[in-house]
Amino acid sequence: MLIVAALGGNALLKRGEKMTAENQRANIGRAASALAALIAAGHDLVITHGNGPQVGLLALQSATAPGSPFPLDVLDAESAGMIGYVLEQELANVIDNRRFATLLTQIKVDPSDPAFDHPTKFIGPGYDVAKARSLAGERGWKIAADGDKWRRLVASPRPMAILEVPVIAGLVEQGIIVICAGGGGIPVVEREDGTLIGVEAVIDKDLASAMLARDLKADMLLLLTDVDAVYRDFGTPAACALGHVDPASLQASAFPTGSMGPKVAAAIEFATLTGKIAAIGNLEEAIDIVSGKRGTWIDGTVPRDPS
Amino acid sequence: MLIVAALGGNALLKRGEKMTAENQRANIGRAASALAALIAAGHDLVITHGNGPQVGLLALQSATAPGSPFPLDVLDAESAGMIGYVLEQELANVIDNRRFATLLTQIKVDPSDPAFDHPTKFIGPGYDVAKARSLAGERGWKIAADGDKWRRLVASPRPMAILEVPVIAGLVEQGIIVICAGGGGIPVVEREDGTLIGVEAVIDKDLASAMLARDLKADMLLLLTDVDAVYRDFGTPAACALGHVDPASLQASAFPTGSMGPKVAAAIEFATLTGKIAAIGNLEEAIDIVSGKRGTWIDGTVPRDPS
Repeated sequence: MLIVAALGGNALLKRGEKMTAENQRANIGRAASALAALIAAGHDLVITHGNGPQVGLLALQSATAPGSPFPLDVLDAESAGMIGYVLEQELANVIDNRRFATLLTQIKVDPSDPAFDHPTKFIGPGYDVAKARSLAGERGWKIAADGDKWRRLVASPRPMAILEVPVIAGLVEQGIIVICAGGGGIPVVEREDGTLIGVEAVIDKDLASAMLARDLKADMLLLLTDVDAVYRDFGTPAACALGHVDPASLQASAFPTGSMGPKVAAAIEFATLTGKIAAIGNLEEAIDIVSGKRGTWIDGTVPRDPS
Repeated sequence: MLIVAALGGNALLKRGEKMTAENQRANIGRAASALAALIAAGHDLVITHGNGPQVGLLALQSATAPGSPFPLDVLDAESAGMIGYVLEQELANVIDNRRFATLLTQIKVDPSDPAFDHPTKFIGPGYDVAKARSLAGERGWKIAADGDKWRRLVASPRPMAILEVPVIAGLVEQGIIVICAGGGGIPVVEREDGTLIGVEAVIDKDLASAMLARDLKADMLLLLTDVDAVYRDFGTPAACALGHVDPASLQASAFPTGSMGPKVAAAIEFATLTGKIAAIGNLEEAIDIVSGKRGTWIDGTVPRDPS
């Protein structure tokens, strides 16, 4: 079957680990081995990935080095190149007789999306309040306190259309394993004259992956992270791992906003709209998640209560 | 006909212009308009591009920001993302009813290529001699004086095989305009166990484009720069623009090594090996170069002297 597999930021760089080229390659190598098991089992794959630590580092480099800093759409494209390349290489090193394509991916967002008025995603380095205020004035940033430092906040608008879907679908049809929508894709808006231009925003990778899976008519959306399942009451003594659940029984808002909440929201959306399965779990257990032995299945195939 | 068009670094950033996101987009926009004329004339296009100023900036950022600097293969991939994305966007803004794919591209090189013993390409920022020597010791760099500063020197090995050729060929067959081999592609070598790994080198973009054009059985290799033709005795009172020439009548070594020499070498190679046409000229005149009215044609279709 065709699986859209999304690699979370925490699956590509362990929590607390330093963002170096060596750490990145080691983690991507582990991800490649886990994904190779899916290929060996006969599945087709389209792979998406996060870019949090990477685009953070690139934003920091771009802001501290000489010259004016590059806009976020361009930094997103850079990070898709840096991660996608290593991922394609490491996949090819553990998977024989398959071809790979790593594709830059633009995703249309609505310029009147309310997210633009209420930016919610921290991006780039932390500054002291004076420096942050001066940068905000100079560059038109929105800023907010993140712990004891101040950081830039950017909008996270909803994905509306993935521009390269026909190209990706054609590649999948030819049996090619596609890596795309890195970092949730590059956000673009349509101007009044109908032309496109990148915007300073980040698209939620899980929502982008859910849309991609729908557009490609994938059989499963697989959201891979460093946690083995979706938990009710995570971090409390009552914590309870969910196995197979009906999307209608879940509320994404009941889960932490930073990490599991967006995954659950994307999974509910995919399972509800398609009547198929969205699964969430630990990258290293990918093959067992797909077969239903591990992880959480948000299962749209469950017949609805007729009431 | 199918044209592989290579955009030179000087076609993407004017000589002396600052490497900013705005300048890059403005130049790429101009390039897109010139290429749109080729599409309007009914040609299929595969587009490659240089990355000199971009990868130089990324290397500088990576070297001056906190954290250990990223290796060149990864920086190459970043630059392919940043340029390829903007190029795809600007092309789509001036070309209707065509699809686009921007692809990361790995190119195999020979680890025993003599170029690795004699690095010739300057990369990244200039340092004073003491700093350069200390970095060279620390990171295993080769360094040399470039004017009054010392810079890192890297190898420029010959391209041996472009890994994504079957994927690119499939996309071309579907009528998709492909952007690939940015910066000459990402150099990789095969290890003893048969797996691939990136290396710290840069591949000449024109040679990579010539190989790509051969592999794709393209009808023409089009090398676009900011000079209107190949000149004999360039910069002297005897300077003479070449129109249509037989590849056997040219010696690449007679042209400046930094810019026109590699283009002429790649053009001779393509024209000689395929019996087709390689053309060199000004980006803004692309459509007239293809029709033979402008630029220099290195014409492999000219019947060889039987002697």
